[in-house]
Amino acid sequence: MNILIKDIDIIPVNRKDEILKSTNLYIQKGRISHIGNLREDIKVDKKIDGKNKLLMPGLINSHTHLGMSLLRNFADDMNLTDWLTKKIWPMEAKLNGEDIYWGSLLSMGEMIMTGTTSFCDMYFFMDEVGRALENSGMRGVLTRGIIEDPKNPKEKLNETKELYKKWNNSLNEKVKVMVAPHAPYTCSPEFLIKTIELSEELNTGIHIHLSETKKEVEDSFKLYGKSPIKHVYDLGMFNSHTIAAHCVHISDEDIDILMENNVYPVNNPASNLKLASGFAPVSKMLKKGIKVSLGTDGASSNNNLDMFKELNLASLVNKAVDLEPLSVPAIKAIEMATLNGAFALGLEKEVGSIEVGKKADMILIDMDKPHLYPKHNLVSAISYSVNGTDVDTVIIDGNIVMENRELKTLDMEKIKYMTEKRTKDLLNR
Amino acid sequence: MNILIKDIDIIPVNRKDEILKSTNLYIQKGRISHIGNLREDIKVDKKIDGKNKLLMPGLINSHTHLGMSLLRNFADDMNLTDWLTKKIWPMEAKLNGEDIYWGSLLSMGEMIMTGTTSFCDMYFFMDEVGRALENSGMRGVLTRGIIEDPKNPKEKLNETKELYKKWNNSLNEKVKVMVAPHAPYTCSPEFLIKTIELSEELNTGIHIHLSETKKEVEDSFKLYGKSPIKHVYDLGMFNSHTIAAHCVHISDEDIDILMENNVYPVNNPASNLKLASGFAPVSKMLKKGIKVSLGTDGASSNNNLDMFKELNLASLVNKAVDLEPLSVPAIKAIEMATLNGAFALGLEKEVGSIEVGKKADMILIDMDKPHLYPKHNLVSAISYSVNGTDVDTVIIDGNIVMENRELKTLDMEKIKYMTEKRTKDLLNR
Ligand SMILES: [Zn+2]
Ligand SMILES: [Zn+2]
Repeated sequence: MNILIKDIDIIPVNRKDEILKSTNLYIQKGRISHIGNLREDIKVDKKIDGKNKLLMPGLINSHTHLGMSLLRNFADDMNLTDWLTKKIWPMEAKLNGEDIYWGSLLSMGEMIMTGTTSFCDMYFFMDEVGRALENSGMRGVLTRGIIEDPKNPKEKLNETKELYKKWNNSLNEKVKVMVAPHAPYTCSPEFLIKTIELSEELNTGIHIHLSETKKEVEDSFKLYGKSPIKHVYDLGMFNSHTIAAHCVHISDEDIDILMENNVYPVNNPASNLKLASGFAPVSKMLKKGIKVSLGTDGASSNNNLDMFKELNLASLVNKAVDLEPLSVPAIKAIEMATLNGAFALGLEKEVGSIEVGKKADMILIDMDKPHLYPKHNLVSAISYSVNGTDVDTVIIDGNIVMENRELKTLDMEKIKYMTEKRTKDLLNR
Repeated sequence: MNILIKDIDIIPVNRKDEILKSTNLYIQKGRISHIGNLREDIKVDKKIDGKNKLLMPGLINSHTHLGMSLLRNFADDMNLTDWLTKKIWPMEAKLNGEDIYWGSLLSMGEMIMTGTTSFCDMYFFMDEVGRALENSGMRGVLTRGIIEDPKNPKEKLNETKELYKKWNNSLNEKVKVMVAPHAPYTCSPEFLIKTIELSEELNTGIHIHLSETKKEVEDSFKLYGKSPIKHVYDLGMFNSHTIAAHCVHISDEDIDILMENNVYPVNNPASNLKLASGFAPVSKMLKKGIKVSLGTDGASSNNNLDMFKELNLASLVNKAVDLEPLSVPAIKAIEMATLNGAFALGLEKEVGSIEVGKKADMILIDMDKPHLYPKHNLVSAISYSVNGTDVDTVIIDGNIVMENRELKTLDMEKIKYMTEKRTKDLLNR
């Protein structure tokens, strides 16, 4: 389908123009084929009026656990260890494939409705997440989270291999598969090496949690005499493309390792605040040229998947941490939520910015809302005033998946009904 | 009008019950007259179905500058001093009464649409803010912000006196007027004493900015050998009911002074983050029994007036600052945004909680949204998942001012048009 969007303001995130005012954008065969004035005789299947709207790249949620939406608002105001061991892990042990399917659909619906077009998910029953992705029309990286099981060390590695064979590069290349050792504190060094070898064998990336809490870092020093980042670096992990969720408690040496090895740290501001993990040194990493991206983490430690909230938090929180109002400027926070996410997912040549030749992953924001008046700086408006619910239209891979806030691919009434039902069932299992 | 709300879940914020499940609430003559089962034959003018909704007290924005919405997204990513002296104050000097009227209406519309029912405003042309309040149906404290003018020391004090005479206790007691010296760094000690004397003469409260930035506190020590809080305390300010915006950089001694004198600090998390002012010791103050409330500050340092964002920030940010996941629990953040705000505005006997006898200021939240599924803990949902845009219905003083997201008192299309027009005009003045 050829789509023409007329008279639209664009934040392209192309590192040249901050904003393009009142222009036109043309989508052909799923890609952005033209920006600017157009010949009169082009073929248009669908025309969208861009007046009073703003177009920008779809947001990229670079670290999440989609199935956890079933545990949203289930356990809060607890520390990470208690929360994981006493509440989350016992419940997760009861989850089945159908739960994960419906929970992932709920998450995808929420993400589309708040402007996210791509994600990187780490969970289990990942085949079900693939099925949900296919139905929703989203773009995503599927990773089977692996907590080492000494009794059955090969099972989850084999699951990852199967997942890769079945899904990698499928659905017009909307799906990628990576290897996901959960964390250095849930996988032994020997086992981590096995995951690294698998990523090399498949020629794909790694997705892992690193240095989320102070305790994790202290424990790593006790066990291995070094930080989690130095530890996995010494094991050879960073020879593979690595998405490193959190990186909160990190030293200058850690930052240098991340920079020199092109590691992609994902900042999860809401989750880090809510679990009292602390403040990641975001501006320091950005200044070194590290492509820090943003994620929501799971819905049970957030407790929503609205990437505009993460973008807003990234632009606000770091200013106070650094006592520096320019710490993470508005446009930089937008870049974290879009282009840097594309780098993290290994998709920077395809998505993450509005440029001719890239795949058509983009969102239109309804700027005709009271809290967006009057119109001064539109970049500021996106970072500081917009809500996820201001997203009007979402296009992924050239397909309209939401228009005028109406989901085109998902039946949200059914999803709400099914997740409520399955959750009640889960609590009685 | 008698209003019956049927089958509704309530977060009453009454310090007894966390939640009342599936009950009824009856409003008579502008007050809550009954909660629970009702006689069949009661007179009902209006019935609201509470299914899939949640009722709670209307949020109270305890510190704001409503007219500043005209400068939303006008100047960002700057430090407080530059922002004030180079950008905001020169623009404010050009604002006229009509600007303030329309800017305040825009702010009130945004506040109602995001669940705020009462506010404490500090600005100028306050007569126009009163006019806007009358039209919007909101409840509010009007305070004429006074920056000392040595050439004309009495003018703004007289304006406050006139404002008090005209508006205090007007509109069915929806309006209060207080005295508002802007800050100790914009008013000399001699002049501050004059404002204190005026508050005593009128038997009303004081609204002031205190200890917002590190620099302000350092300057106070240089000039007066003490903190801003100790300074105004020694001048006798705290003999009057005092609303103290910010209180970010405060010592244990300052906290004791606030506690012992029943001062009402207002935490403005978004503004403090955005202007890189720092983190107020919120949990420390709450633990001492101080009734810390929440405010948005002006729309130009936020850049929105959504109190649910402030509530969410208060519940998140303090956890990471204190490295303590229980620092400000969900229900405490809700209390800050409601009942503590009522204390700050001197209205705790009338509003701020859902209790029989109190005035009917309340909001209904539409819980049938994807990001609020599944239903586990509703208190967590309000703090961590809800958006201001989930507010469905708003009742102030027993009057429905928004229903199914439709504003009943304000013409938002006209307000958007007028604020856009006046802002363009302002930039060319
Ligand atoms: Zn995670
Ligand atoms: Zn203020």
